[in-house]
Amino acid sequence: VPEMGRISDPSDHEERRGMNKHPEPITIYGGGSWGTTLALLLGRRGFEVALWDRDPAQRARLANDRENRSFLPGMVFPPSIHVLSEAEVPAPSGRLVVLAVPSHGLRWLMQELVRGGEHLWIVATKGLEEGTTLTMSQVVRQVAGEGAGPIVVLAGPSLAREVAEEKPAAVLAASLEADPAILVQRTFATDYFRVYTSNDPMGVELGTSLKNVIALAAGIADGLGLGQNARGALLTRGLAEISRLGEAMGARPETFVGLAGVGDLVTTCTSPLSRNHTLGEALGRGEPLAGAMERIGMVVEGVRTTRAVCELAAKVKLEMPIAQQVYRILFEEVPPAVALRELMTRPLRAE
Amino acid sequence: VPEMGRISDPSDHEERRGMNKHPEPITIYGGGSWGTTLALLLGRRGFEVALWDRDPAQRARLANDRENRSFLPGMVFPPSIHVLSEAEVPAPSGRLVVLAVPSHGLRWLMQELVRGGEHLWIVATKGLEEGTTLTMSQVVRQVAGEGAGPIVVLAGPSLAREVAEEKPAAVLAASLEADPAILVQRTFATDYFRVYTSNDPMGVELGTSLKNVIALAAGIADGLGLGQNARGALLTRGLAEISRLGEAMGARPETFVGLAGVGDLVTTCTSPLSRNHTLGEALGRGEPLAGAMERIGMVVEGVRTTRAVCELAAKVKLEMPIAQQVYRILFEEVPPAVALRELMTRPLRAE
Repeated sequence: VPEMGRISDPSDHEERRGMNKHPEPITIYGGGSWGTTLALLLGRRGFEVALWDRDPAQRARLANDRENRSFLPGMVFPPSIHVLSEAEVPAPSGRLVVLAVPSHGLRWLMQELVRGGEHLWIVATKGLEEGTTLTMSQVVRQVAGEGAGPIVVLAGPSLAREVAEEKPAAVLAASLEADPAILVQRTFATDYFRVYTSNDPMGVELGTSLKNVIALAAGIADGLGLGQNARGALLTRGLAEISRLGEAMGARPETFVGLAGVGDLVTTCTSPLSRNHTLGEALGRGEPLAGAMERIGMVVEGVRTTRAVCELAAKVKLEMPIAQQVYRILFEEVPPAVALRELMTRPLRAE
Repeated sequence: VPEMGRISDPSDHEERRGMNKHPEPITIYGGGSWGTTLALLLGRRGFEVALWDRDPAQRARLANDRENRSFLPGMVFPPSIHVLSEAEVPAPSGRLVVLAVPSHGLRWLMQELVRGGEHLWIVATKGLEEGTTLTMSQVVRQVAGEGAGPIVVLAGPSLAREVAEEKPAAVLAASLEADPAILVQRTFATDYFRVYTSNDPMGVELGTSLKNVIALAAGIADGLGLGQNARGALLTRGLAEISRLGEAMGARPETFVGLAGVGDLVTTCTSPLSRNHTLGEALGRGEPLAGAMERIGMVVEGVRTTRAVCELAAKVKLEMPIAQQVYRILFEEVPPAVALRELMTRPLRAE
């Protein structure tokens, strides 16, 4: 099956900035750091972007400051970004809809949006839903139904600040259907933000969501001062753990050695810009969870994902030792040193 | 074939420090940072260790200082470490021989040692031999012949200083024969230095040697300030490049998602303790090669490995874009920014 896993080349489709004279407007829901970054990227490319956030105070700040001062200070909005002021969820103004809200807000948002008809849903939110253990694109499909249009997952190693600063990155547009993935690729790809298509949305979502759990673990190890040999071993076993779950869920193993696996894991687990890593580090140094989360002041998706992935692992009867030890540290007050020691001295079953 | 790729559990065999009352003496050739670290590890476990270095000045310093002041200051030798003062290569004093000399010195050393009869050769040197493009264990086998005893490769994410400081690490003892690998595991494993066996020495050697080339590339990217998204993408493609070569050489693909692939890549490419990464960073910032190498003052294996791996890739007719761009930067005076730009904008064929 030679087409399986084929990654198309963005240079086939790539459009340079300024080539979009009359592009379709795009609506972005979620004015956090990633939603704002995607708005900047599209706005700079000449798209008309409508940006809406659920929080009235955040909407007002984005509209007045013409930048996201809390997360991306100094990144001024081009005139093509329109901050919507509606209190109720506004209907999308074009076919393309970017979903960039926190994972726990996606179901509610979709329930509001689904009345607006058919769209191409671009899922930029990572995580698993607690309780249902669904991926974000599964939540979209469940709420919107089959007739509501195609879904494309946009994910990969892409720390928001670096993308906003136009540093090079390579990400994936993953969909079960080829054409919508190519459209998303054409819409977002620039010479610094390279978008490759993938036909494994489940693998891409699991890899890029679960890496946040491993990033918490890597941060904890760093906070404990275990060193970089330990971090290398931990990431290796984290990747194996993610791949095993992926296999159980029908994802393709190749996805996890690609950008959505190894790539995102490396970027997230070694970056001071990753809030999951930062939170883990604080926990490893002995800071209590509540205080550390308040200090970071952003949604730390890995915390929710840890809970959801442990639920999912129980459902599919899979051992996920790293996720389970992170869970014990987060929710059962097990001291990080104890949990990590159990991990590091645990027999390695197979590579 | 369920036994393929099985990694045995060190807790089956592990011996705690001090349990070796009358262990066999072990001879270590090479008093650099890794050779010294292995001497410290074995000496602290109670083994009688004979340590020899080819350089008379280094031999004298090790003997007088009872520590390796240049690379591991403050790590005092236990009395069980005996620094040999012979000018000629001394014959090994026990069955176990650790080879920890720079890659370009291994053939010469083996030619001297091979007269000493049968041994268990523990290959701790990484790299490919220039000209022959052989791995280090292949060099040992070629010089020593089939009757000279088994060969075990000891490798994995193991920055020397961290191991000397007894921080946790997990590495591989890889051999075509099971018993010698288990003996090496028993000899080296402690509760902080965990040794797993592998039956894929070729994969382990290629992974842990070629990662130095990718570490140079990652360092160059960091020196250019490309950011962590770029580093994640680069490591992903570096891993794919190593795996393709491994496959062509008969290694097992699973090895490259394990400690000798992902693990060592992550540790080496993100550590300020890695000299390959440090050299790359200097080159990325615009420092000339000769000056940067002199400043680092240690053998930077990745430089030789880059040359050898490009020879090997040509032999087996394989494209290795990252290695080839690193080669151009090192040996053809191509500016790092030009070479890296070519890499980052190159079409990604497949994941």
